[in-house]
Amino acid sequence: MENEKRTEIATLGEFGLIDHLTRSFPLKNRESILGVGDDAALIDNQGQLTVVSTDLLLEGIHFDLMYYPLKHLGYKSIVVNLSDICAMNARPKQVTVSIGLSNRFSVEAVDELYAGIQAACDFYGVDLVGGDTSSSLQGLVISVTAIGQVTPEKKVLRSTAKVGDIICVTGDLGGAYLGLQILEREKQIFLNQPETKPDLEDQQYIVGRQLKPEARLDMIEQFEKSGVIPTAMIDISDGLASDLKHICKQSGVGAFIEESGVPIHPQSEQMALKFKLDPITCALSGGEDYELLFTIDPKDLNKVRVMSDIYMMGEIVDAKDGIKLHTKGGNLHDLTAQGWNHF
Amino acid sequence: MENEKRTEIATLGEFGLIDHLTRSFPLKNRESILGVGDDAALIDNQGQLTVVSTDLLLEGIHFDLMYYPLKHLGYKSIVVNLSDICAMNARPKQVTVSIGLSNRFSVEAVDELYAGIQAACDFYGVDLVGGDTSSSLQGLVISVTAIGQVTPEKKVLRSTAKVGDIICVTGDLGGAYLGLQILEREKQIFLNQPETKPDLEDQQYIVGRQLKPEARLDMIEQFEKSGVIPTAMIDISDGLASDLKHICKQSGVGAFIEESGVPIHPQSEQMALKFKLDPITCALSGGEDYELLFTIDPKDLNKVRVMSDIYMMGEIVDAKDGIKLHTKGGNLHDLTAQGWNHF
Repeated sequence: MENEKRTEIATLGEFGLIDHLTRSFPLKNRESILGVGDDAALIDNQGQLTVVSTDLLLEGIHFDLMYYPLKHLGYKSIVVNLSDICAMNARPKQVTVSIGLSNRFSVEAVDELYAGIQAACDFYGVDLVGGDTSSSLQGLVISVTAIGQVTPEKKVLRSTAKVGDIICVTGDLGGAYLGLQILEREKQIFLNQPETKPDLEDQQYIVGRQLKPEARLDMIEQFEKSGVIPTAMIDISDGLASDLKHICKQSGVGAFIEESGVPIHPQSEQMALKFKLDPITCALSGGEDYELLFTIDPKDLNKVRVMSDIYMMGEIVDAKDGIKLHTKGGNLHDLTAQGWNHF
Repeated sequence: MENEKRTEIATLGEFGLIDHLTRSFPLKNRESILGVGDDAALIDNQGQLTVVSTDLLLEGIHFDLMYYPLKHLGYKSIVVNLSDICAMNARPKQVTVSIGLSNRFSVEAVDELYAGIQAACDFYGVDLVGGDTSSSLQGLVISVTAIGQVTPEKKVLRSTAKVGDIICVTGDLGGAYLGLQILEREKQIFLNQPETKPDLEDQQYIVGRQLKPEARLDMIEQFEKSGVIPTAMIDISDGLASDLKHICKQSGVGAFIEESGVPIHPQSEQMALKFKLDPITCALSGGEDYELLFTIDPKDLNKVRVMSDIYMMGEIVDAKDGIKLHTKGGNLHDLTAQGWNHF
């Protein structure tokens, strides 16, 4: 039909598209506590809450098999979902895995993928309870749904940060992005000179941040042990700036981040400079680090100070003060979210 | 690496591949009651069970957008998952929907898809609680996970049919397959002569069986009302023969099916003959009817007789007697499962 209106998806962007598509789906069931818009959904079972999160990984969009070993890909496809469950302060328990495979994949290749899936399931103590397999006309399609559990009083949403809360993160940022830059560079070198061996030796840490990220279940366990419940939490998949913006928007608050408080690994710093990139930009917009970004009530400060792997980066402020970065040079900039936009 | 062993996936087939990939995933969590191998997984919440099922739909494999309207596709993508939840005798409550879209799709096109998703969510009273959207290099990708609830005593597995149980189905079979044949034929005619209008007028019923299948939630409600709990159940997605084989294999039993008991709609019968196909073969191997295939204890026979939409087709027998079709002509044939094999 030639006269139909055609709006390009790119005009909405990923989050705009999700808002657009899901705004006319009000929740109907009493058990559906929380739907679209957080890291995971919450379902009430008269006691424990069931936490559900799902991710779709498509070849050529989310991964390039030229430098992504299938075993790592399997591991990561589980981890990125468990990370969403952890971001609700919940314990992951089960996963379902669906895959679409073209006939260029052999059983041995799929076994590699599942060896990675199994390694992740074993490491995090989760059960593979279902899935679907299909052939695919094109590339590899992986869809994972993770299911977790949390008690109602311990669940942590994105929408509950309060003015005065301290903004924390569980590890250094920007490494996964810079690891990807190295893999992309080596791919180009390989395509031009196939006899060249890839040069990844000095950058094991950041390449590992890209190829084998971990979900911070250990931090959820630390929170439990220390009796700390963050006031809001999200996992960093799109980048600190983009993910902090989600917390601020949904909580109706602003944020101040101190540049000097943003943890950056020395290897990330060096590699950024080598690529002529600003290290702080990589840390703010890089994405895929899968660290937990969370806020705590100042009264919990003493408990949090003694926990390992926690970096304090700033403070939640009034919405009218915006989302700002206080640079080492003393300037105040808007914290712009570049994030990953797949459209 | 040239010397690596390469086994084609086609040598295993879909079910063989699933077995192969999942056999080394024992369940670790106390809450994981049932994992891979039934219509859905079961998770214990100290009371209600959470039921989880997931399906992946890929363009060119599971649907052809030349004759599949996006709204119908959205509706069907939900229904096929709810059908799996119903097949556990459970009530569907929530769904997550992930989509991968290439840039040939406009926002209006995606809206059509979601209008169908919403129509299904509304009709079945389920909540959309999450998902993921991404661009895709590979055409349209739809991954749905459905979540339901059932009490432990009412759950129905595939593995619990007993010798002497009556085999029943909730509706006529083969229609969806024959509807697909019509759509494929009209597509070929259109490709050859684009000015021809598609001729679907006389076959509304079977085309509808393909384009707008329903999950038999109404039957789950009837079971509840009548106090009947089937001894085993599965939904017919791959075809009666293939799906009955799942029940028999997992229950360690055999089955006798009476050809005269297999419900076939008059329109399916006529259309099969027009396509020079055997109507019973279409009913046995057609697939995608999404009726419930279940077994009942003979003591429930009187309760089931008065329920609408139930057809009795045969009986569960000893495993050593195999899975047989007793034809109208009085012969006994092996019931061979052709089903859909996507590999």
